[in-house]
Amino acid sequence: MSRKSKRSLKEKFSLKNSLVKEALSEFLGTFILIALGCGCVGQAVLSRGEHGGPMTVSVGFAMAVTIAVYVSGGVSGGHINPAVSLAMCVTGRLKWTKLPIYILAQLLGAFIGAAAVFGIYYNAFMEYSDGKLEVTGPNATAQIFATYPAPYLSLINGFADQVMSTAVLLLAIFAIFDTKNNSVPKGLEPIAIGLLIIVLTCSLGMNSGCAMNPARDLGPRLFTAIAGWGMEVFTAGNNWWWIPIVAPLLGGVLGAMIYIIFIEIHHSDTQSGEENEVHTKYELTNMA
Amino acid sequence: MSRKSKRSLKEKFSLKNSLVKEALSEFLGTFILIALGCGCVGQAVLSRGEHGGPMTVSVGFAMAVTIAVYVSGGVSGGHINPAVSLAMCVTGRLKWTKLPIYILAQLLGAFIGAAAVFGIYYNAFMEYSDGKLEVTGPNATAQIFATYPAPYLSLINGFADQVMSTAVLLLAIFAIFDTKNNSVPKGLEPIAIGLLIIVLTCSLGMNSGCAMNPARDLGPRLFTAIAGWGMEVFTAGNNWWWIPIVAPLLGGVLGAMIYIIFIEIHHSDTQSGEENEVHTKYELTNMA
Amino acid sequence: MSRKSKRSLKEKFSLKNSLVKEALSEFLGTFILIALGCGCVGQAVLSRGEHGGPMTVSVGFAMAVTIAVYVSGGVSGGHINPAVSLAMCVTGRLKWTKLPIYILAQLLGAFIGAAAVFGIYYNAFMEYSDGKLEVTGPNATAQIFATYPAPYLSLINGFADQVMSTAVLLLAIFAIFDTKNNSVPKGLEPIAIGLLIIVLTCSLGMNSGCAMNPARDLGPRLFTAIAGWGMEVFTAGNNWWWIPIVAPLLGGVLGAMIYIIFIEIHHSDTQSGEENEVHTKYELTNMA
Amino acid sequence: MSRKSKRSLKEKFSLKNSLVKEALSEFLGTFILIALGCGCVGQAVLSRGEHGGPMTVSVGFAMAVTIAVYVSGGVSGGHINPAVSLAMCVTGRLKWTKLPIYILAQLLGAFIGAAAVFGIYYNAFMEYSDGKLEVTGPNATAQIFATYPAPYLSLINGFADQVMSTAVLLLAIFAIFDTKNNSVPKGLEPIAIGLLIIVLTCSLGMNSGCAMNPARDLGPRLFTAIAGWGMEVFTAGNNWWWIPIVAPLLGGVLGAMIYIIFIEIHHSDTQSGEENEVHTKYELTNMA
Repeated sequence: MSRKSKRSLKEKFSLKNSLVKEALSEFLGTFILIALGCGCVGQAVLSRGEHGGPMTVSVGFAMAVTIAVYVSGGVSGGHINPAVSLAMCVTGRLKWTKLPIYILAQLLGAFIGAAAVFGIYYNAFMEYSDGKLEVTGPNATAQIFATYPAPYLSLINGFADQVMSTAVLLLAIFAIFDTKNNSVPKGLEPIAIGLLIIVLTCSLGMNSGCAMNPARDLGPRLFTAIAGWGMEVFTAGNNWWWIPIVAPLLGGVLGAMIYIIFIEIHHSDTQSGEENEVHTKYELTNMA
Repeated sequence: MSRKSKRSLKEKFSLKNSLVKEALSEFLGTFILIALGCGCVGQAVLSRGEHGGPMTVSVGFAMAVTIAVYVSGGVSGGHINPAVSLAMCVTGRLKWTKLPIYILAQLLGAFIGAAAVFGIYYNAFMEYSDGKLEVTGPNATAQIFATYPAPYLSLINGFADQVMSTAVLLLAIFAIFDTKNNSVPKGLEPIAIGLLIIVLTCSLGMNSGCAMNPARDLGPRLFTAIAGWGMEVFTAGNNWWWIPIVAPLLGGVLGAMIYIIFIEIHHSDTQSGEENEVHTKYELTNMA
Repeated sequence: MSRKSKRSLKEKFSLKNSLVKEALSEFLGTFILIALGCGCVGQAVLSRGEHGGPMTVSVGFAMAVTIAVYVSGGVSGGHINPAVSLAMCVTGRLKWTKLPIYILAQLLGAFIGAAAVFGIYYNAFMEYSDGKLEVTGPNATAQIFATYPAPYLSLINGFADQVMSTAVLLLAIFAIFDTKNNSVPKGLEPIAIGLLIIVLTCSLGMNSGCAMNPARDLGPRLFTAIAGWGMEVFTAGNNWWWIPIVAPLLGGVLGAMIYIIFIEIHHSDTQSGEENEVHTKYELTNMA
Repeated sequence: MSRKSKRSLKEKFSLKNSLVKEALSEFLGTFILIALGCGCVGQAVLSRGEHGGPMTVSVGFAMAVTIAVYVSGGVSGGHINPAVSLAMCVTGRLKWTKLPIYILAQLLGAFIGAAAVFGIYYNAFMEYSDGKLEVTGPNATAQIFATYPAPYLSLINGFADQVMSTAVLLLAIFAIFDTKNNSVPKGLEPIAIGLLIIVLTCSLGMNSGCAMNPARDLGPRLFTAIAGWGMEVFTAGNNWWWIPIVAPLLGGVLGAMIYIIFIEIHHSDTQSGEENEVHTKYELTNMA
């Protein structure tokens, strides 16, 4: 397409309304997150470990987050997670009026992302269990999409698990973006967030798969309910489904608060990130 | 060699024609990609899993892409993939007249890269299957070079798989280089592309090995046809060979279009990357 | 919370005393380190290898260090390790009067971090060994928290192991922050330190788990002594407990000294990092 | 130590002779490389795979290179490899008179590094094979230190393997540092080199362990000859020992030449890296 026709396309279709732009961005970002992230779980499960395992799932899902944040970071902040958006509202970093639209776009993106995983691996799903789509048992495949608790896990322990892991997620995200702390250089934050997801899934992933994201969990769960796994996706694990929705929202706000109380509130107003840097470097290298 | 003799060498041999330079660059980049990338698959297959597995292949192939882009990025853009070059043409980022040369150089580089893998592991190939070079069965080695579908995969599902994975590849590449989005700092894009390849191979690699690149697939396949595996490399998998050629070309353009429609076209003209950055940082850190 | 109420909160609670700020920062950083780091060991042990192994523990623990340094780096230097703080004091990079407070905050953070791991995996601990918390034997879980020597290891070899690994740790940290060497760009040091931890745990982790950090070892050990594993956590391994305290303190100072003697002391005073860079680049690229 | 006493120490001991500084730097860098790199192989072998495998060895060795280059990069260029130093001489980037000193320092560092691995794992070596230090057979441990060919490998194929892998190593290093190409930002080159080592060991590591470095191979081999493995370390593998010395020296020069001929010689003289960047960015983002 020529540069001229492109320009006229731009005139016709480019959006003036920034909220609509941001919704498109969150939708696309969350789609990428689920299509690639749940794709990693799918590859490990459907190949019965031959083409994947704990390491490919942990690193793969983390890099799915990284790519999703690169895609959506500049336009909408790359939240791709209602728990992040809520924490941003509570701490005054996002307007409350935008919250419902962000969450809706995220849920929709996650739902469509789950459909993409099912479509791309349709033949593999049919082969895996002779066409039966099961939520529990040795041929279960529902855990490719949404999270389910380990057999030993009580609801209260599972709730605490999701509160804590999402709290650490938000606490670290606030540190990564805090320019008065040792923040990550502009344009590399998505990679730092990916490294954060690696450690979270390696350390807090065993209880219930470490959802930490209501859209990442509910969107694909809704898809499986419709696509053939049935309502058992909601009843399984002692009605587990609501925990990866409520606990991350709580935990995210908690983590943001902890970061502000322990670190951010004490930054001196006059001390810019620049000065802080000089000071730190001085302490570390020049006092010798 | 002295600095003087070097300079005169430069006067004699340095190329004035930028298209020839770019062809050399794409040739060398794609050679590196295949020599190292297919080398990773070779090491895992020929050692029967002792010196490699899903993780070394995924991470190794990804870092092969990273290195190949470092080698060829500055001169020719580091496409090393006809699907990337085509998407660049369609979106006006590369002149159409350059396309055939780029593709030819990529194919040639991939062919020679495959020959290098065969040469370096010649003793290992002979040891592995008593000198028989097989396309299918337990001692198959053709999949070290080109991709073949899993037994369960239908042609239509395989086609969709290659369209989608290449679409995500190009969509993410466009995001990584979009200076009005949260783009990767100059000189680190090849590493971000490597991380992208990690997640793509961990999530969409099970159906058919995730070629996403006509040169990466056809070049080595042609080599195996000639080097002793025979014409079965084309007939295997229900004549699979044309899918990793046609589907990625389509998918790449599709992914580029999706990125433009969802994100790029809505960037306001006056809003520079610089301003955008300030705005984002403000929202994230100063509104509190 | 509105921007106004936030500001008044800041007025009420923000700390003027920089040592208290730094203590909070070290506490939070070390908490993150242990909660996530020991969480990785917990996931690998409690799942009996199903959800983790050497690679997830090595990479996960390393990324826990990275995140902990991002959280605490800007305010307190991100030591999260008494051996680092001591080496900084000995080399004149931290005031001696701050040392006891730093160490206390680190120990406390590690203790609470261990409690968090126990809490989050409480159901898993109970399931793993029918409620018995054992220090040795096939169902041992104490090694999730503190380090214990391999059966073959003598005390003297173990002591040397901890001296050497902490010496390399500090030597490399000094290189990473030395602006007259090829130092890591500002804001990316925590990632370089994470990569350093990966290689240290992959190469020197077999003898005793590579603690290299008195707080990381003693804090969780104290927690296990109280939480039900009993005093055997101190007597096990021929009273091993004091080695990961004394040896790292010694090794850290040794490593810092080696770096200063081999590299830092020879930097010419007039040669700034800037000039050095130009010089290096010249040698590498322009003399050709 | 006070700042004043430090300064006087500096006056007494700081070296004026830059070649001595550089030798110290190469010695320390190569020591780190071998102590940590061969330590990774040691951990995987001595634990019989329980604490390591192909992935920890590949990633661990690569990060050992990264750390070694951070330690020695600013002072001596961080060659830590005679094949790199030779290629730098041949292409006019290092004075020929410095070459023997560089190589000697590298050899010595590698020798002492091997001794450190033996010392730290002394108890483990004794436990592993009841005190017998064997070069071949199921309890062999010599391959922890130097490289040995796979049983199937002919000398000629092994020679080609080492020529090619070192050629790719140098070719990529030249690209990473070429400021007129898409070079890695200052201070991050050691990480890019680490990623390069990951792919080289994952793809070309099966034939003979991918030494690519005469000092890395000969230094530890000499140590094992003396420390108890005996002269079999030289005769094993059909007198393999000289191949990882001669072939990398040749391959390194070859790779550097290929990069210069294919890429560097064609950079236009007036086109600075800066302009090149603008041009590339324009092609990639503004022509649309």
